[in-house]
Amino acid sequence: MKLSDLHTPCLVLDQLKLKHNIDVMNARIQAHGVMFRPHVKTAKCLEIARLVSAGNTGPITVSTLREAEYFFAGGFEDILYAVSIVPARLRRVQALMDRGCDLKLILDNIDVARRLAAAGMEMQMTFKTLIEVDCDGHRAGLAPNDPAVVELAKILNDLSGVEFLGFMTHAGESYTCSSIGELKRHAVQEAKAIIDCTQAVGKAGLSARIRSVGSTPTATFVDDLSGISEVRAGVYVFQDLFQVGLGVCGLQDIAMAVLTTVVSHKQSQNRLIVDAGGLALSKDHSTATQKMDCRYGLVCHAESGELIDGLYVEAANQEHGMITAVAGQIDYSLFPIGTQLRILPNHACMTAAAHDKYHVLDVDANVCATWSRCNGW
Amino acid sequence: MKLSDLHTPCLVLDQLKLKHNIDVMNARIQAHGVMFRPHVKTAKCLEIARLVSAGNTGPITVSTLREAEYFFAGGFEDILYAVSIVPARLRRVQALMDRGCDLKLILDNIDVARRLAAAGMEMQMTFKTLIEVDCDGHRAGLAPNDPAVVELAKILNDLSGVEFLGFMTHAGESYTCSSIGELKRHAVQEAKAIIDCTQAVGKAGLSARIRSVGSTPTATFVDDLSGISEVRAGVYVFQDLFQVGLGVCGLQDIAMAVLTTVVSHKQSQNRLIVDAGGLALSKDHSTATQKMDCRYGLVCHAESGELIDGLYVEAANQEHGMITAVAGQIDYSLFPIGTQLRILPNHACMTAAAHDKYHVLDVDANVCATWSRCNGW
Repeated sequence: MKLSDLHTPCLVLDQLKLKHNIDVMNARIQAHGVMFRPHVKTAKCLEIARLVSAGNTGPITVSTLREAEYFFAGGFEDILYAVSIVPARLRRVQALMDRGCDLKLILDNIDVARRLAAAGMEMQMTFKTLIEVDCDGHRAGLAPNDPAVVELAKILNDLSGVEFLGFMTHAGESYTCSSIGELKRHAVQEAKAIIDCTQAVGKAGLSARIRSVGSTPTATFVDDLSGISEVRAGVYVFQDLFQVGLGVCGLQDIAMAVLTTVVSHKQSQNRLIVDAGGLALSKDHSTATQKMDCRYGLVCHAESGELIDGLYVEAANQEHGMITAVAGQIDYSLFPIGTQLRILPNHACMTAAAHDKYHVLDVDANVCATWSRCNGW
Repeated sequence: MKLSDLHTPCLVLDQLKLKHNIDVMNARIQAHGVMFRPHVKTAKCLEIARLVSAGNTGPITVSTLREAEYFFAGGFEDILYAVSIVPARLRRVQALMDRGCDLKLILDNIDVARRLAAAGMEMQMTFKTLIEVDCDGHRAGLAPNDPAVVELAKILNDLSGVEFLGFMTHAGESYTCSSIGELKRHAVQEAKAIIDCTQAVGKAGLSARIRSVGSTPTATFVDDLSGISEVRAGVYVFQDLFQVGLGVCGLQDIAMAVLTTVVSHKQSQNRLIVDAGGLALSKDHSTATQKMDCRYGLVCHAESGELIDGLYVEAANQEHGMITAVAGQIDYSLFPIGTQLRILPNHACMTAAAHDKYHVLDVDANVCATWSRCNGW
């Protein structure tokens, strides 16, 4: 199948770049001598998770129970569900554990720990738990120096129905960095948060077997992972314009794009209108805070995947994307109506979520496979 | 089924408000004595389209061929596909027409018209076409005074393989208005664009049978539809915070919300963290340009649907929404972890697209039905 056989808008995935991104990160984590627990929330795709674990079904991180169910059905057993657990979800957790899934939960609250323990007792199960630690004020989790860290660990250790495995944190604020030096400081801070908690519970006689850190930027630039048992990262498989802006990768590393078709010439506004709008691209505009604001995406030739200098997606309605030029007039003779283009995404996780599959491209830009995604909750 | 039985995040739909919004718009259009061709791109749902056409399967507008296929399979035959047609899509158009679908296409380009005619001749079909007119510089379409309007109409009228039906326009720039007076001026401008084109082709001896205008704001406030044959509107079925900001409706009219669960208390940041993040809410932040910036949504009690004054979704990561207070400290005792909340969306079309179904709520907030959506392309 060729690109021209595809119904646009749709996702295309450069197999070579995908494999390159995977190889680079795998080598990096391996060099640190720690375990890699890739976050599959970006790709949500069995084939890609298998590529990451070199054909195996290694440990993974998920962001939804739907993902946990999908990847467990695909053979992945060691799964960290990295969003704070709430008691209402325990039936689905139980169903997975009953079938043999080694599902690990996270929490940051003493009341939840007690409710989990009570539910575990009632269900005659033991829920495996990690405490979420907040290393940078980005999301959920306890501050590393919060006395509740030790209190919570003790409760999880002492009560029946729950088990204390360790700590996890995510350096989400690394996304605000503007230099490699800053990213490295975030990586240090991320690891330190986990080490501090491990030492604190150590003094109370508890052992944190899992000491988990991760984000694509910190996993890329971290120098020292002493004391850390595993690293998580997700978006690196595709990379995106935001990661380019951070300095994590180059434009040539972005593996995923939205294939689109020129549907109208709006010469009076110096615009090409394409059929990838806000739904196909997402309304994520995260590069707005970076040096290079890419609006809703940069534009590439469909076949070669090469960047077309100076074009970008200026605006996005539901099904219309408006491409314009940074400077000068668009040469419309180069882009007849019907021309296919690729749009590089600001934020691959958000863009991919609008689609239910990837069309995988070989080196000749032929479609060599179609891989499904597991969307929803 | 009760709200507490639902897996969050998910969409909930207040049946009473939905019906109210539908009734109000139906009465408004009926009073103008013109045909209503609702845009089903917001709800993408058969049951809702049937409610709009009072149990029938009346004329509709779609934004994707996937919608055309889905609604035609559900009994809707008169379908306007309101995104510029490109020749690569004609096989799917043909498949629909062959099965009896009265599918109408739009275009704004003479080269496309000739290619459509050639394809029609080759396929032994006649593609029904409307010319897209640009009334406000918002999207695609020819300017009403562009000589290409008459030239294109003549080509569509004269060539075999294509048929000229009339004109359509969409007052998308009405979304930038800040007063009812301005909205009314946009409604006048929208209708005038179509009337001007109709008169121009009339002088050339051509008749524009379909003269189609529409957007929720202009359909709400238009005073005079003389010369117009049909009106389109879509988001009014749900309404949203952006429409509230425009003055199109009140907060109490918003029929659709994202049901979510409190998963973490972040007292140090005065935040409640919920399980509806950027994926479940969308990253649309369109109210940023309005007087009342609602960030990623306003917060309501789950059962009553009543607004909780002063709370809003400040930030949204992939699976985490951060709720904070406009002023003062959140009283965490009111929102234990596990509490369900509803989030009102900025832009219902974008938010709904992240989900595959609606849970319909009766007056007691019980789930009385589950309706599917037709996502993708």
